[in-house]
Amino acid sequence: LLARHPGIDVVAASASARVGVGLADFYPHLDAYKRLTFVTIEEALSTPVDIVFPSLPHGESMKIFGEFEKAKVVDIAGDFRLSDPALYPNWYGSEHASPSALSGWVYGLTELHRKEVSAAERVANPGCYSAAAILALAPLVASGALRTTGIHVDAKSGISGAGRAGGEDFDFTYSNENTRPYAVVGHKHIPEIEQELGALAGGEVRVSMVPHLVPMTRGIVATCVAELAGRWRTAELIALMRDRYRGEPFVRVLDEDTLPESKRLTGTNLAEVTVRVDERTSKAIAIAAIDNLGKGAAGQAIQNANLMLGFDETTALDISGLIP
Amino acid sequence: LLARHPGIDVVAASASARVGVGLADFYPHLDAYKRLTFVTIEEALSTPVDIVFPSLPHGESMKIFGEFEKAKVVDIAGDFRLSDPALYPNWYGSEHASPSALSGWVYGLTELHRKEVSAAERVANPGCYSAAAILALAPLVASGALRTTGIHVDAKSGISGAGRAGGEDFDFTYSNENTRPYAVVGHKHIPEIEQELGALAGGEVRVSMVPHLVPMTRGIVATCVAELAGRWRTAELIALMRDRYRGEPFVRVLDEDTLPESKRLTGTNLAEVTVRVDERTSKAIAIAAIDNLGKGAAGQAIQNANLMLGFDETTALDISGLIP
Amino acid sequence: LLARHPGIDVVAASASARVGVGLADFYPHLDAYKRLTFVTIEEALSTPVDIVFPSLPHGESMKIFGEFEKAKVVDIAGDFRLSDPALYPNWYGSEHASPSALSGWVYGLTELHRKEVSAAERVANPGCYSAAAILALAPLVASGALRTTGIHVDAKSGISGAGRAGGEDFDFTYSNENTRPYAVVGHKHIPEIEQELGALAGGEVRVSMVPHLVPMTRGIVATCVAELAGRWRTAELIALMRDRYRGEPFVRVLDEDTLPESKRLTGTNLAEVTVRVDERTSKAIAIAAIDNLGKGAAGQAIQNANLMLGFDETTALDISGLIP
Amino acid sequence: LLARHPGIDVVAASASARVGVGLADFYPHLDAYKRLTFVTIEEALSTPVDIVFPSLPHGESMKIFGEFEKAKVVDIAGDFRLSDPALYPNWYGSEHASPSALSGWVYGLTELHRKEVSAAERVANPGCYSAAAILALAPLVASGALRTTGIHVDAKSGISGAGRAGGEDFDFTYSNENTRPYAVVGHKHIPEIEQELGALAGGEVRVSMVPHLVPMTRGIVATCVAELAGRWRTAELIALMRDRYRGEPFVRVLDEDTLPESKRLTGTNLAEVTVRVDERTSKAIAIAAIDNLGKGAAGQAIQNANLMLGFDETTALDISGLIP
Repeated sequence: LLARHPGIDVVAASASARVGVGLADFYPHLDAYKRLTFVTIEEALSTPVDIVFPSLPHGESMKIFGEFEKAKVVDIAGDFRLSDPALYPNWYGSEHASPSALSGWVYGLTELHRKEVSAAERVANPGCYSAAAILALAPLVASGALRTTGIHVDAKSGISGAGRAGGEDFDFTYSNENTRPYAVVGHKHIPEIEQELGALAGGEVRVSMVPHLVPMTRGIVATCVAELAGRWRTAELIALMRDRYRGEPFVRVLDEDTLPESKRLTGTNLAEVTVRVDERTSKAIAIAAIDNLGKGAAGQAIQNANLMLGFDETTALDISGLIP
Repeated sequence: LLARHPGIDVVAASASARVGVGLADFYPHLDAYKRLTFVTIEEALSTPVDIVFPSLPHGESMKIFGEFEKAKVVDIAGDFRLSDPALYPNWYGSEHASPSALSGWVYGLTELHRKEVSAAERVANPGCYSAAAILALAPLVASGALRTTGIHVDAKSGISGAGRAGGEDFDFTYSNENTRPYAVVGHKHIPEIEQELGALAGGEVRVSMVPHLVPMTRGIVATCVAELAGRWRTAELIALMRDRYRGEPFVRVLDEDTLPESKRLTGTNLAEVTVRVDERTSKAIAIAAIDNLGKGAAGQAIQNANLMLGFDETTALDISGLIP
Repeated sequence: LLARHPGIDVVAASASARVGVGLADFYPHLDAYKRLTFVTIEEALSTPVDIVFPSLPHGESMKIFGEFEKAKVVDIAGDFRLSDPALYPNWYGSEHASPSALSGWVYGLTELHRKEVSAAERVANPGCYSAAAILALAPLVASGALRTTGIHVDAKSGISGAGRAGGEDFDFTYSNENTRPYAVVGHKHIPEIEQELGALAGGEVRVSMVPHLVPMTRGIVATCVAELAGRWRTAELIALMRDRYRGEPFVRVLDEDTLPESKRLTGTNLAEVTVRVDERTSKAIAIAAIDNLGKGAAGQAIQNANLMLGFDETTALDISGLIP
Repeated sequence: LLARHPGIDVVAASASARVGVGLADFYPHLDAYKRLTFVTIEEALSTPVDIVFPSLPHGESMKIFGEFEKAKVVDIAGDFRLSDPALYPNWYGSEHASPSALSGWVYGLTELHRKEVSAAERVANPGCYSAAAILALAPLVASGALRTTGIHVDAKSGISGAGRAGGEDFDFTYSNENTRPYAVVGHKHIPEIEQELGALAGGEVRVSMVPHLVPMTRGIVATCVAELAGRWRTAELIALMRDRYRGEPFVRVLDEDTLPESKRLTGTNLAEVTVRVDERTSKAIAIAAIDNLGKGAAGQAIQNANLMLGFDETTALDISGLIP
């Protein structure tokens, strides 16, 4: 994405396992960066830059960037997503290393926090599942259309969500023709969803979530179910979505005749959202699809960086998706 | 499956679009049936047989088999699954053609109705999603562990669920790398699930279900969520499953360290089930995986036929699955 | 691709089976074209335009565009690829409808005919297999490194090569986990390859080719084998490739430590090529990978159109490919 | 496969990386072997057994089994496939550890060496590519229909050919939607093919081979090209195949209207073979498809074991394949 960005020049790339390897040697499709080799984190951090995109294992960013002052930061990890330091031990298993720094970070789902992101020095990029679930649910929760104490999210992700060096569980031979749930209780993205929806609801929101891996490379479909608060028709709820996302360059609200699908979003920063009412059971079913590496990670990060650096928000993100 | 069955000889096969075509010409892997060509339904029905496995579009079986007397029948379609004729207009869009015949049919999920199936002349094979969802939920509902008015099923199916002549929506190019929900409200398998769980609960059960197609050929994972009735721990709910399915040849109850997956069930008649308690939200998450063409269709049909014809229940179904 | 082209505005789109359907309704990812609905061919042809991209079944273009005068044309079909009208009956099964028009067409593999394409009114876009095979073999044939009477091409294509309405042979359920050869003798792309390589060799070239479908959406890998004419080492043949393709924006010549792969080219107009010498059998193995819908079809068409209309050759084609 | 074998009981299973792990814990589909845990090689070898199936990295079998006397052996590795010890340094990179033992081994492609296998104590199971290529070419080479100095094999394999712990090159995310050649020159299976075809030809045979990985789990399609020796028609060459493989339980010779495909062979021990003549270029194109883990490995091993132990050759191998 950055190779096509007219205003951002990549000056250093770090990957601890590949220090000294040329970017274009390891990734031939990155021949725009033939001049770069992977360097250590220390060397990357000592390079003068305007913005840093750390994507480190949980707990590493909070050590390095808690008191960082040199450049703006969009953190891809989960280290600064939760504003309440008390939540980290429960969900991430240990105390936050820089709790006093948390107040300086903005949760970087642009559609909810555009102003804060634009003014921010520190942005915590959302988790991939969180981005999808929040985009599906935000207009409904903000309008009081849902009972917020029993929201359930069933999420299906492509396998790139597991990272590149995933190990034998993510081998093609074991993954193709396989659908499998994991982290059935207590996935780390849940508290982000509760935090953001809670702010919109003005009160506590309780979410359960079951993520699944399905045999595709990229994409997330989050299918969210909640009891309706009062009587609503599908068209009314879709109208709430349209109102909320009017003018948003990266959210496509779908009407009653179309449902979100992951494939056509591959490579894009788009989200597709829609909702249906099941009158018989008095439930709303809100659905979002994204590319987990697009709106769920790198695309969202660049959208945030564009705002933080004063570029047009859509710079380098004007990609339509591929069909077939 | 039947090619390996020592007691069942296939004497006629009907496919209206392929009358006159050799089975082994169309399907080279069926060279055990080189002597057979596809015939018309009429010709098939006039052949003397012990058992018939109709797999017709909805509404066709009820016309032909409502008053049928010649042979035993395991119907793969949905025409005789609901015992209450009043349900057909709502869920299938039209009145049942033989309502008085419905009482002669048994719902053929063997694990729930083994005795009735063994004595039956007419068995309605379960829907693929229903088989998975019921197997996941039955022990919990029967034990009163769940609140039964708001059960939600999120189901992911391989694309063979859409049938062979699916049309361009099921082309490889449009299906691979794609996850997509469909029939978000009102899928036809819901009333079967409510009927069977309602009988176990001794009262009304309300189910919502969102099915999805994921890019694999076979397999269903049904992830079912319900509020707990009272306090239960995961181990207690798994124990309910173990008790219910003790001795069942085709149900594998998984412990807390393993989750159901679809791939290793491909080609088998097995179901894998387990359950987890989310204490924070007071929910049970019950999960089942099956091969939609195995326990969800043909395997289940042969399991029923074995009982109806007096064979050992596992005949021709002793297949372990392939990994990788 | 055109949605991102700053100089080409799509003013009409025709699809006979979908007349009246909105482009963005049928293809939600094309919401850049919300204003357009599919029209008939007649209506499309009566719209004033600068350039037309027909992609019709074989035989249709030659009827319509043989004497066409209104706009420039890049034909995606095979109707005008062979300059010798005598070849059409053998390879396409019938006489050419406008043989006298053939001399006005340029074979649009830009790397071989950049000057002619730039000046052309009519360009015949190459076949997908031909583009790959010719790019792999051209430098070697032009340099006399190969014996040209027994070249063999083994090609593997993604299933989008079969078109969207492919029918049940291209269903996901039948295509996934399947590799299958087809058209083992006499594929229609062979005479293009012989024509273009023959021109470079200054004499007759004989090619056999076996295409295969492999379970992926896009991409072609063409693995070409020929006897060496004389003794050559791998490095020398790669040097011939480097010399031929120096400065080419869309050909990536790979060194001895890397081999072409299809995935990282998805969505791009790039070709990756390399070659190895098998000294023991005195053979050269030249390999090319492309996206069959990129350099093998739409990308190549836009590359040609850019030249024909005076745009920079790479306009709208500056895409890097996605990994993963 | 062995779980369904009535005459072979698995009494020990060894996997050095998983000593102490239960088979059914690691592979839930193997619950037929709940009583077994993986043991060390030493412990496995000290268990009294009738037959051993070693599947070790190259070079390990030849150290252990060169002078082994206790039980019959079907070796899955390449250590004893080449009868000429002089070939090992060239193709495998080092001298054979037990050259004098080589004469005691039979090359276990049953269709070529049924008698020898039946009498053998030591059988070297063929390489997966070799099994496919030899089955495609043997009838033609034995009949003198081909010029044998320039045979070329283009092979496409599912990714299970790379083994389970393949590393990140075999991750789903990098493998799906990817076709890639490897080992373009000098693959280790070439000398087996030359050895076996040379014996049939009564003279030297020279083979080049390019293997490819395609995005599927199992299956090999080997597309073999050779110049014809004299004039032959397709029907004549197919007749040679039919003659050679008459009565063979695991070879399906396909007529002119059908081509080998990998999918329908998944899980079976079958090979599909056929051939076409390209009259224009005077070439024969012989094609074979197998399951690389069936006829290309485990299935073939059990076929050999059945003969070596006096069972019916097809025991435990009567599986039809799955469609879809």
